[in-house]
Amino acid sequence: MARLIEELKKLPGVGSKSAQRFAFHILRSSDEDALALAEAVRGLKASLRLCSVCNNVTDIDPCNYCSNPARNHRLVCVVEEPTNITSIERTRGFEGVYHVLHGTLSPLHGIGPDQLRSATLLARVERGEVDEVILATSPTLEGEATASWLATALRGLSAKVTRIATGVPAGSDIEYADEVTMARALEGRREL
Amino acid sequence: MARLIEELKKLPGVGSKSAQRFAFHILRSSDEDALALAEAVRGLKASLRLCSVCNNVTDIDPCNYCSNPARNHRLVCVVEEPTNITSIERTRGFEGVYHVLHGTLSPLHGIGPDQLRSATLLARVERGEVDEVILATSPTLEGEATASWLATALRGLSAKVTRIATGVPAGSDIEYADEVTMARALEGRREL
Repeated sequence: MARLIEELKKLPGVGSKSAQRFAFHILRSSDEDALALAEAVRGLKASLRLCSVCNNVTDIDPCNYCSNPARNHRLVCVVEEPTNITSIERTRGFEGVYHVLHGTLSPLHGIGPDQLRSATLLARVERGEVDEVILATSPTLEGEATASWLATALRGLSAKVTRIATGVPAGSDIEYADEVTMARALEGRREL
Repeated sequence: MARLIEELKKLPGVGSKSAQRFAFHILRSSDEDALALAEAVRGLKASLRLCSVCNNVTDIDPCNYCSNPARNHRLVCVVEEPTNITSIERTRGFEGVYHVLHGTLSPLHGIGPDQLRSATLLARVERGEVDEVILATSPTLEGEATASWLATALRGLSAKVTRIATGVPAGSDIEYADEVTMARALEGRREL
């Protein structure tokens, strides 16, 4: 029991109290339910892994994007987390593939370039397999630092390096744009 | 009294009840206060007008921006309302001048190109006095329609026509960007 509580406490946002409650719940539940939970936890790790090409979470390797011949494998969109891929897929406008960093640079939290999964991306670009790398990290402090570090790391290689636009969100009045966003919207203006 | 109530009801968000309350308040207040209010209303119209160059609300003509020799008068930023100038001035990054349309195209509300104050802008561009027109209307339905109408009206003239960037706002996670904004952020990506 104590061992289970210790393990449950490792889940994010779960303290001693919650862990104890979970453990008692499992104790009271049927054998099947407890085994199903154990099996689901074991199965997740057994079936899900990171794509060896792009680091996306996947049950097949390479992942669905990297193994899809209909996509443009010479156009790589770099994102922070696997969930960001959903945001980009929803636009139905991106035909390329992805690379997941699994985080952003964050010196305060001890996350430096070595902690980010960028090696396979750099290798692909170095081998000349990529025409354009789109840096689609968020326009937050960490996301910008990560984009600028990656841009430097990719400098001198053959791929074009681009950054997604920062600006006033679609459908929103410029009245509500903060000054940094407004400054970036002006700076990033495009010829019509 | 009835005449005052009728006039007060023309103020936005003021109905019969509020107008009556205002009127009785004025009735009860001192002669000086009532006269000061009347004088302030009269004075506003007497002292404030629209700049003959850019249509900004101003007490001198031309306005502070149009008469400032330190600003670049060949770079014109087109906005919907005088208050939008504040949003752009806050960025401290814009050195040009403005043109205020006083509205956006809105066929549903009967606002067509003739209702917008664009004549002086077109005349300035036609006279070759402008190098670049930045269309800084909001990325809303009406703002986009207005920008695209103006871009067409300016086509073939000597000035470059640009549009402010639509994209993920600064400091915001791409997780929270809607798909139209995300699509525009990708589309508007810039080379680093």
